[in-house]
Amino acid sequence: MGPLSDIKVLDFTRVLAGPYATMILGDLGAEIIKIEQPGSGDDSRAFGPYKNGESGYFMSLNRNKMSLTLNLKKPEGKAIVEKLVTEADVVVENFRPGTMDRLGLGYGHLKTINPRLIYAASTGYGQTGPYSQKPAYDGVVQALGGIMSITGSEGGQATRVGPSIGDIAAGMFTVIGILTALHERENSGKGQMVDVAMLDCQVALLENAIARYEITGQVPGPIGNRHPSIAPFEPFDTSTAQIMIAIGNDKLWQTFTSLVGLEFEAPEKFVTNPDRIRNYKELRPYIEAKMKEKTCEEWQVILDEAGIPNGPINTIDKVVSDQQILYRNMIQEVDHPVAGKTKIPGIPVKLSETPGSVRSAAPVLGADTEYILQKYLGMDEGQIAALRKNNVI
Amino acid sequence: MGPLSDIKVLDFTRVLAGPYATMILGDLGAEIIKIEQPGSGDDSRAFGPYKNGESGYFMSLNRNKMSLTLNLKKPEGKAIVEKLVTEADVVVENFRPGTMDRLGLGYGHLKTINPRLIYAASTGYGQTGPYSQKPAYDGVVQALGGIMSITGSEGGQATRVGPSIGDIAAGMFTVIGILTALHERENSGKGQMVDVAMLDCQVALLENAIARYEITGQVPGPIGNRHPSIAPFEPFDTSTAQIMIAIGNDKLWQTFTSLVGLEFEAPEKFVTNPDRIRNYKELRPYIEAKMKEKTCEEWQVILDEAGIPNGPINTIDKVVSDQQILYRNMIQEVDHPVAGKTKIPGIPVKLSETPGSVRSAAPVLGADTEYILQKYLGMDEGQIAALRKNNVI
Repeated sequence: MGPLSDIKVLDFTRVLAGPYATMILGDLGAEIIKIEQPGSGDDSRAFGPYKNGESGYFMSLNRNKMSLTLNLKKPEGKAIVEKLVTEADVVVENFRPGTMDRLGLGYGHLKTINPRLIYAASTGYGQTGPYSQKPAYDGVVQALGGIMSITGSEGGQATRVGPSIGDIAAGMFTVIGILTALHERENSGKGQMVDVAMLDCQVALLENAIARYEITGQVPGPIGNRHPSIAPFEPFDTSTAQIMIAIGNDKLWQTFTSLVGLEFEAPEKFVTNPDRIRNYKELRPYIEAKMKEKTCEEWQVILDEAGIPNGPINTIDKVVSDQQILYRNMIQEVDHPVAGKTKIPGIPVKLSETPGSVRSAAPVLGADTEYILQKYLGMDEGQIAALRKNNVI
Repeated sequence: MGPLSDIKVLDFTRVLAGPYATMILGDLGAEIIKIEQPGSGDDSRAFGPYKNGESGYFMSLNRNKMSLTLNLKKPEGKAIVEKLVTEADVVVENFRPGTMDRLGLGYGHLKTINPRLIYAASTGYGQTGPYSQKPAYDGVVQALGGIMSITGSEGGQATRVGPSIGDIAAGMFTVIGILTALHERENSGKGQMVDVAMLDCQVALLENAIARYEITGQVPGPIGNRHPSIAPFEPFDTSTAQIMIAIGNDKLWQTFTSLVGLEFEAPEKFVTNPDRIRNYKELRPYIEAKMKEKTCEEWQVILDEAGIPNGPINTIDKVVSDQQILYRNMIQEVDHPVAGKTKIPGIPVKLSETPGSVRSAAPVLGADTEYILQKYLGMDEGQIAALRKNNVI
């Protein structure tokens, strides 16, 4: 079911960047066999908070996957991987470069077993270059990659992006690399390696900051919540919560001033956007005073009716109950065998004919071990019991 | 050249989300025909700063594309699109829902011309739902989608992510949708519509925030630069710039304390990570004092040698000269016919056999109009001159 339902993925990933990538592939229908260390599994199974002992972190990243426990350091474990690789389309891993080679499961070896295999590795710094062997965490990569230096209040400290965008962006580009390699394989008949670095992806997220620096020679800093060249375009306090207002052009400005009832001593100072930018210190108090006269909800209704772009700064409790987000099915409920009913994010890629779907909650550790060994390797109960006795699975 | 070189994209996008998507496709080899309004073109051509009159913003998002000027409101313009659609694989647009329908170029019509066509629309709120007709800007979407509410200093104000992650994430998921639909077309022979909303994508970026809220009932707030459950894991002042340090486990902690020469009055308070979290207020001043004894560069060398994850908080000038970023070819120089040599971000998807490439700088407005009309529509100079006279191109 789903547009990638003919694709089999062997998933060696753990924690965030890799699991985010295979979650996207699974959402779109790919069969994901997640290979986990017997006993402990993906490190993030230990990350709290927990629901009936199951990690919320793990559950929010591993729906639509099967769990196969496998000790990769045992010859029998390695042999099982080699057999699974013969039928797999994609391997994904996010170890430090060289780890899979040391296990005897590097791309150089696996492609001799299956030349059509696409092997995707997501790492902190990439397979090559002077930092390739350095350990990476999201915080370090956000620091090195420049995004922190342009996030934060104006003139203030560099600020980490709340969600781990260092990992998440790498997960998304890994998916793009895999899907591109699958397309190329239709023509060449051959697989290839996809090498995605968290740090590279941070550079790719910088938008126009590099161009601005190159052209002006000025080092961009944190810009706060205000738009650098459009005004007003920032949050304002109301009598309740803040509201974000974005007056993108002069026509919207005219609508806004008459709608809100703004009256200026010297209106000629605020006619065009360049005027408003130039005289913003004088302008802002007028708007501030007005916006405090009503609640955030009242302003939303008024501004929406006039087509003025606006919105509340939703906290997570508001996000999960927002009517558009719910309409778009972006909060889904899964029934986990241990944790029970749990809410997780939906699928942002909406396809008209072959939509993705959330078909199963995250697996408990090793939930699908027997099924996979029977189905793909034709093992019987005795063979599986022997593997279990020898701590292979 | 490149893994998507057999894919033709008709690109109606402007500003950021859409152009980011078609840039990724172009980087990976797809042929991108960017259709622009005669005279003005993509709105972002007017966004400063400029180099020899060319927008740095536009140039950093539109390499590897051809520019065809076309007035879509003229019947001749519409007819040219209809002819191009017969040979296209993908249409991408980021207008408000309904705009392409009003031009007579909606998916419902285009698929009758080419049933294999994949039609991708990137919008603020999606094609459906109560907000679908509302205007959206990155700032508003970041506010509504929750990412602002968990970004910022601990206990402080909600903070916008510096780069326009509302647009950029939508661009990336649009690419994932297009590549998935291309894969599905190999099996079904049919195209479909890809509907990606900026707001949906923000929800998909929230990482484990939804799970945390669902399980604990506590609304997540801005977490600052410190890790919520690992310590020390944040930036510290040195005698020069700040350095990010990430001590991910107790073994690294032991290495770190002896390496740095940390001595405590009550060392038993800081042995395990839970200890360090519990007693962090007492711990932090010890580390602060030590880190101020050397420069950021000196600490980097010392910590790197011991395998302690660390890094400076690079500003953009440092990013564009970082040795790993340069090694990975993540800063590329293009020679623009008007602006001259310009640095732009490289390609984060590294494919071993069929790599992407930056083959051309962003086009000047209409640079490829004649070439495209001759090549795809077989027009001669007289026909093209007539179109120009009638303000069609």
